[in-house]
Amino acid sequence: MDAFPPTGRTTVRRLPQRGVYDKAAVYAILDEGFICHVGFAIDGQPYVIPTGYARSGDEIFFHGSAASRMLHTLGDGLDVCVTVTLVDGFVLSRSAFHHSVNYRSVVILGRARVLADPAEKTIALRCFTNHILPGRWEEVRPPSDQELKATLVLALPLREVSAKVRQGPPVEDACDIARPTWAGVVPLHAHLGEPVPMDDIPDGVPPFDRSRFTRF
Amino acid sequence: MDAFPPTGRTTVRRLPQRGVYDKAAVYAILDEGFICHVGFAIDGQPYVIPTGYARSGDEIFFHGSAASRMLHTLGDGLDVCVTVTLVDGFVLSRSAFHHSVNYRSVVILGRARVLADPAEKTIALRCFTNHILPGRWEEVRPPSDQELKATLVLALPLREVSAKVRQGPPVEDACDIARPTWAGVVPLHAHLGEPVPMDDIPDGVPPFDRSRFTRF
Repeated sequence: MDAFPPTGRTTVRRLPQRGVYDKAAVYAILDEGFICHVGFAIDGQPYVIPTGYARSGDEIFFHGSAASRMLHTLGDGLDVCVTVTLVDGFVLSRSAFHHSVNYRSVVILGRARVLADPAEKTIALRCFTNHILPGRWEEVRPPSDQELKATLVLALPLREVSAKVRQGPPVEDACDIARPTWAGVVPLHAHLGEPVPMDDIPDGVPPFDRSRFTRF
Repeated sequence: MDAFPPTGRTTVRRLPQRGVYDKAAVYAILDEGFICHVGFAIDGQPYVIPTGYARSGDEIFFHGSAASRMLHTLGDGLDVCVTVTLVDGFVLSRSAFHHSVNYRSVVILGRARVLADPAEKTIALRCFTNHILPGRWEEVRPPSDQELKATLVLALPLREVSAKVRQGPPVEDACDIARPTWAGVVPLHAHLGEPVPMDDIPDGVPPFDRSRFTRF
């Protein structure tokens, strides 16, 4: 099966032509991003918290301190919405009204489960670390038992999922074409700066190679 | 008054040293960002939707189609959480456990109001447009009455607000210092690509000058 079946809650209603349910397209967005916004409600009050994540198959993992109220609350089976947004560019039209942004976003609805088994937790944390920087897990000290206990890892299944995508040039009304104003798209990219090493790195360790962050 | 008084709902509990309530610091984060994640709950199910925003004084504006269910629901006085996140860099430690991300985020709780007065709406839309690209409003066609009617603009007061900030190098455990692994921070920036003009721009319009996007 190649698509997430749209539900009443994930069907894109505003600008339905922007709705994407294809699994490969959803995975590509999730695999390019690394920060999600986790939404949950307590007594009707919504909270939206940014955190890192990684996808493995039809699940995403996110994690945090075992002392985090948020994570415990979510692990108790609260309804959650996790949203990932990639901004691709500014869409400049000759009218104020038709200005827009090119973006790709994914919305996941569901309930998360706590990974209790230390082996399963370790696999998820490796996935998480190597999602950000391939190969990093293999070169750093793995978590101690105590560190593993201090880390709560949650898995959210990818079942009720939709993406919304806007790409391409602005829409222009015919009456605006002759206006002497620049119009088009200004792309936006994430870009890595010069690495800032700690001053206690042992002699002989080579400088960091930014190209290891394969997504930039 | 220079700080937002922390409430039971906005006090940063996990890593409280990262909590920031100073107004100037909160404004600086809000003014550097331009995409927020709007959270709201319907029958206990949270939804988190990305959208653009701009700050003016102690309010932020966001907007969308008058046909948007989300915006109407929010304009009806539903509790909302708006979160803005800026990611500043990857924090690479010599242990898996101490990896982190440098970031600045703002969480705003409250209730939004719909701007009903067309003049007030127009001021908010000008603020919104020029927040993204200074001076853009003055060079494009302003909204027609019909376009203004088709646009719903919401204002959310900045009352219950907190920021959370992590900056600087990784924490390292003493036992990891001798490990022959690079450690430090790899900064992350947003970066504008080459503008892609529409092919029907009238002769004589100069190429787009990216430096007009003053935040990049």
